[in-house]
Amino acid sequence: MTANELRAAIERGEFDAPTAGYCPDNVQANLVALPREYADDFEQFCKQNPKPCPLLEKVGPNSSLTSALADGADLKRCIARYKIFVDGVPSQEVKGIGEFYQDDFVFFLLGCSFSFEDALIKAGIPLRHIEEKKNVSMYTTNIPLASAEPFKGEMVVSMRPIPAERVVDACIITAHYPGVHGAPVHVGYPELIGISDIGKPDFGDPVDILPGEIPVFWACGVTPQNALLQAKLPIAVTHAPGYMFVGDARNEDYYEILD
Amino acid sequence: MTANELRAAIERGEFDAPTAGYCPDNVQANLVALPREYADDFEQFCKQNPKPCPLLEKVGPNSSLTSALADGADLKRCIARYKIFVDGVPSQEVKGIGEFYQDDFVFFLLGCSFSFEDALIKAGIPLRHIEEKKNVSMYTTNIPLASAEPFKGEMVVSMRPIPAERVVDACIITAHYPGVHGAPVHVGYPELIGISDIGKPDFGDPVDILPGEIPVFWACGVTPQNALLQAKLPIAVTHAPGYMFVGDARNEDYYEILD
Repeated sequence: MTANELRAAIERGEFDAPTAGYCPDNVQANLVALPREYADDFEQFCKQNPKPCPLLEKVGPNSSLTSALADGADLKRCIARYKIFVDGVPSQEVKGIGEFYQDDFVFFLLGCSFSFEDALIKAGIPLRHIEEKKNVSMYTTNIPLASAEPFKGEMVVSMRPIPAERVVDACIITAHYPGVHGAPVHVGYPELIGISDIGKPDFGDPVDILPGEIPVFWACGVTPQNALLQAKLPIAVTHAPGYMFVGDARNEDYYEILD
Repeated sequence: MTANELRAAIERGEFDAPTAGYCPDNVQANLVALPREYADDFEQFCKQNPKPCPLLEKVGPNSSLTSALADGADLKRCIARYKIFVDGVPSQEVKGIGEFYQDDFVFFLLGCSFSFEDALIKAGIPLRHIEEKKNVSMYTTNIPLASAEPFKGEMVVSMRPIPAERVVDACIITAHYPGVHGAPVHVGYPELIGISDIGKPDFGDPVDILPGEIPVFWACGVTPQNALLQAKLPIAVTHAPGYMFVGDARNEDYYEILD
């Protein structure tokens, strides 16, 4: 299935699953849509927090069609699950933004760690959530963000159990992709970043951490959803964690040499 | 003190300390000297185990003078402490190889992690053994080596406690120096590599691991000394752990772009 076919299946209501493992050559992205009056502050928030919020494309106002990540994908309907925030409260998950759409929405597409998963797999590093067809485990942490009022709070991270002898390789492989979260923010010892129960992720599904594996944590584009809880905008829309925008742009375009 | 001055002080018997932190711009190296008949096998052992045994220069037989790492440094006397192995038994530490020298010795200089310590410090990552003027902590592990008979065994690692939020930076910074051990071989969880008591290093000094710090392990050029225990050569000479050869070559010459 190409990314275009996947987005079409979503628009027809025929695909409803976390997107990890699909279209492995293609970049995936987190979505934040909010009224124009908050857009500059949110963009500043992204610039100040590039690890969790790497801005890949901005769309709107007065348009919901992508151009950089895909040619003309409609952000109102091409993601499998949207999450609606009303006055800072995540009120419901919907298929298609539909009635919640406003002409003054600005859409932000932020890099997603699913984009570097294929590089890990090609290096022989297994990823349990893909093997088990689960959503990746995500956790709220105590890692502080740089504030850009009204946006502030703590980082959300994704976690992958990695065989101990491949942990450093995983760090270096993903460091080559700074536009899609890059290197991990933490290795091992969940309690040091405020995660009290690794078996109970705040978003996504739990996965087993087997003997000889170490939990490795990457900055996650669900981070703005935590910031939205505090910002209490009258209306905002995001993707549902794990249900990403899948673009036509290719992960290899986000590969950088480290010098 | 320049590297040349340091080596001269050693030859005069006026310097007798671990070399970490000295001549921070200069490459440091591990020494293994053994009779010519074992040299090819040992060189093969190094090639098969490039993380712990990165070969920087080979000298001899019939000469003990360096050319690549320094111009004409005498490896018989320019290291502060030598360790003499007789029939595989480390029998004594000496200043100067002296009476143990044989014309047929081949000297191997192997990269040392002290060479990337200045890059870590310049990145704001503190190194406790340098702050406390101690020898770095080194441990025998259960990480197997590729055998090249009679050389075989398990890897020795050096350990540095790193603030949790800088661990990934430390991995990437040191990955740029593959000739001097490069990226860590393990992060955290000493028991996973067969270290039962982190407070009791097999070589060097213990250092405190403070709350919020994670022990990070790099391959160590003391590894051949473990292999010598099993190889049981009639005679072999190494540096004493932490008392390194300090060359005129500069660490920046060993920096590599990661692509």
